[in-house]
Amino acid sequence: MIKKVLIANRGEIALRIIRTCREMGIQTVAVYSTADRDSLPVRFADEAVCIGPPPSAKSYLHVPSIIAAAEVTGADAIHPGYGFLAENADFARTCADHNLTFIGPRPETISSMGDKSVAKETMVKAGVPVVPGSDGAVADAAEGLKAARDAGFPVMIKASAGGGGKGMRMASDEAEFEKLFVAASNEAMSAFGDGRIYIEKFVEEPRHVEIQLLGDGTGNVIHFGERECSIQRRHQKLLEEAPSPIVDEDLRQRMGEAAMAGAEAVKYTGAGTVEFLVDKNRDFYFMEMNTRIQVEHPVTEEVTDTDLIEWQIRVASGETFDSGARKLYGHSIECRINAEDPFRNFAPSPGTLTAFHSPKGRGVRCDTHVFGGYTIPQYYDSLIAKLIVRDSNREKAIAKMQRALGEFIVEGVKTTIPFHQQLLADPRFQAGDFDTKFLERFELVKGTGD
Amino acid sequence: MIKKVLIANRGEIALRIIRTCREMGIQTVAVYSTADRDSLPVRFADEAVCIGPPPSAKSYLHVPSIIAAAEVTGADAIHPGYGFLAENADFARTCADHNLTFIGPRPETISSMGDKSVAKETMVKAGVPVVPGSDGAVADAAEGLKAARDAGFPVMIKASAGGGGKGMRMASDEAEFEKLFVAASNEAMSAFGDGRIYIEKFVEEPRHVEIQLLGDGTGNVIHFGERECSIQRRHQKLLEEAPSPIVDEDLRQRMGEAAMAGAEAVKYTGAGTVEFLVDKNRDFYFMEMNTRIQVEHPVTEEVTDTDLIEWQIRVASGETFDSGARKLYGHSIECRINAEDPFRNFAPSPGTLTAFHSPKGRGVRCDTHVFGGYTIPQYYDSLIAKLIVRDSNREKAIAKMQRALGEFIVEGVKTTIPFHQQLLADPRFQAGDFDTKFLERFELVKGTGD
Repeated sequence: MIKKVLIANRGEIALRIIRTCREMGIQTVAVYSTADRDSLPVRFADEAVCIGPPPSAKSYLHVPSIIAAAEVTGADAIHPGYGFLAENADFARTCADHNLTFIGPRPETISSMGDKSVAKETMVKAGVPVVPGSDGAVADAAEGLKAARDAGFPVMIKASAGGGGKGMRMASDEAEFEKLFVAASNEAMSAFGDGRIYIEKFVEEPRHVEIQLLGDGTGNVIHFGERECSIQRRHQKLLEEAPSPIVDEDLRQRMGEAAMAGAEAVKYTGAGTVEFLVDKNRDFYFMEMNTRIQVEHPVTEEVTDTDLIEWQIRVASGETFDSGARKLYGHSIECRINAEDPFRNFAPSPGTLTAFHSPKGRGVRCDTHVFGGYTIPQYYDSLIAKLIVRDSNREKAIAKMQRALGEFIVEGVKTTIPFHQQLLADPRFQAGDFDTKFLERFELVKGTGD
Repeated sequence: MIKKVLIANRGEIALRIIRTCREMGIQTVAVYSTADRDSLPVRFADEAVCIGPPPSAKSYLHVPSIIAAAEVTGADAIHPGYGFLAENADFARTCADHNLTFIGPRPETISSMGDKSVAKETMVKAGVPVVPGSDGAVADAAEGLKAARDAGFPVMIKASAGGGGKGMRMASDEAEFEKLFVAASNEAMSAFGDGRIYIEKFVEEPRHVEIQLLGDGTGNVIHFGERECSIQRRHQKLLEEAPSPIVDEDLRQRMGEAAMAGAEAVKYTGAGTVEFLVDKNRDFYFMEMNTRIQVEHPVTEEVTDTDLIEWQIRVASGETFDSGARKLYGHSIECRINAEDPFRNFAPSPGTLTAFHSPKGRGVRCDTHVFGGYTIPQYYDSLIAKLIVRDSNREKAIAKMQRALGEFIVEGVKTTIPFHQQLLADPRFQAGDFDTKFLERFELVKGTGD
């Protein structure tokens, strides 16, 4: 069994990991940059080692300092949290080279899932549905049309070398296909010097729904149901919930089994998440797999009554289990409280918290590393707290979150709290009627005092 | 349905009630004394009315001010919380006279359960076991001996007019009975001018275990299992848990059915608690019934996934249900964090909180009305926070509570935190091996920095 864990991270997730370790009787080592000297993980860990200054390249991403901190403190395992080194296969390998247990999947799993085409291929082999389309670039418009017919219109015509929307067209039917194909190819050639094109089915009203998994490394995988993460702004999730309002028991079982099949195929170890797009017909398609704990893991913990960090550690210690599915109880929502100004395009708002009072009470959880008087450093992401509620159904969970947000007192910086309050009051949100493009159309109303 | 609730209370329970009302879409009115002007219930209620200065007789117990506040704000119901007017039948009647819904039992239920002998009689009729003994005072030692034989030795010989241990003897067997009876009677005569004596079975290794009930007023009663409350100091509970380590499913069912029978007999309305003594043979005896919400209600909420305040309001609004028993999931513990110095005989320690940081994380709940900078008034009880944890079993709940207590930062006043830390580390506590006299024998070790 693991005896001492070094947490190669900062902020709320570092504290989150420390808490579970302490409850398990495991010693903890926090590493921190000079900018994080005053944060709670440093205070609450059994030991703390400064590993350098910001930016992260000199501290949280600086592998030699982290390994040295582990060796000097006698840690026998490293938890990477999320971000930073969490999906760095080389780091996982370096840990192994130093006889340190990396709390996460094997390096080869991290690599393969980190490579989009390898990941997709692995999933297809395991029978996991992916967005239909051509198998890579097509030779010409005729071959493209054939792929489009197979996938079914509407389709996306996409530049192989693409990015930023360049060389991309949406074709609604066969009639307009060839003209759009040529235009996209020409645009790609002039933008990237590469006119190759591939075809993909256009996913209508896409929702981001992800399945939480846990593998024991011997081929056994548990799935913990789904998280609904369609409330995104520029691919940044802002609010997550479990279960998804559009997933029923049948769809949950099918998505869960698909995700499990993919993970079983690679004898997945530890916690991981399979992200799917779900379209308006409730067909689902593999997007990618994240080989780490995710920011939004608490909503799954709340509805499955599970400590996912504990299970990461138990699996890393060699524990095995039978494959299966966990039942979901009630409904949980997480709001990401970022130090950002939602009325100024979510511009970061670092500074000193002149007041900080977090909501409390039955069914309310606030995961945070900050406190009144704390200065938010400018170097890192702007997440200052995750406000999580759980209640018996979605309607009650929304009411509870509204109550909790109303109690949140943060002074000194701007936060996403008013954004969440308006979102939760929106009838479409309340009806569960939204997709990943919902926030593009969502209009924030400037209130008094904002 | 109730639309606006006035909360005739202060402190954490006032805030607790406000939270549930808000989640239910019910408006709230806080009343407060001048000493409580800065507390959170005043800040978080929709309206707040000052009802006078301390002491409580001039504010929280001053019925005309409270009724006037309800009328001026248009409240249609009053929640009394616990303490103050919560078990005052006259107040409940006055509410009714003013067309205000009293959120609690009917006045006659409050009266009858408030009178020990009436309450006992009611329970006996309903078949609830009470401590065996004589039916009131006995004529002489011979009749006393007969009663003692019927109850079974050891017995307590008690002065009818008794108090403070005067005129009280414990008789282990028949041989010593008469001598002790005479001594007790003589002592009672000289202390109280009344030599009458009654006999009661001596409850060995007594534990305080109570059953949470909810009645709908039509004779239907739900029981929510038990709370273990034996950790007491001078009849003040300090730590409570659910379930009790000594109660198994069979005993739970028997205690639950006994408590339900008593409550069904009086067509009980609202939340109530039947307190039992449980002896070393796991026989249980009715002690008293509390006709209000209790301080320790959160541990029941946590293991039954229920909002008891919500149910109080729903019942007061006329909702009915079928009788039944709720299942318990996992284990919950509550530590009362009092502003008291456990190393100075738990002397009150009012003052200003120069720092206050409450524990957080999965399965941790902190019900409190205080915050950094808050000044604890000297006029009221010393409870500043209830720290509640829930986990899948007792061992994990203890570990979680230890983790949470270690995170609690309170500066400026002394608290019961170090007491709880030592209690939770005690092997007898951990083994569940304690009774109501446990704290008399518990030795607190003065640590560094205390």
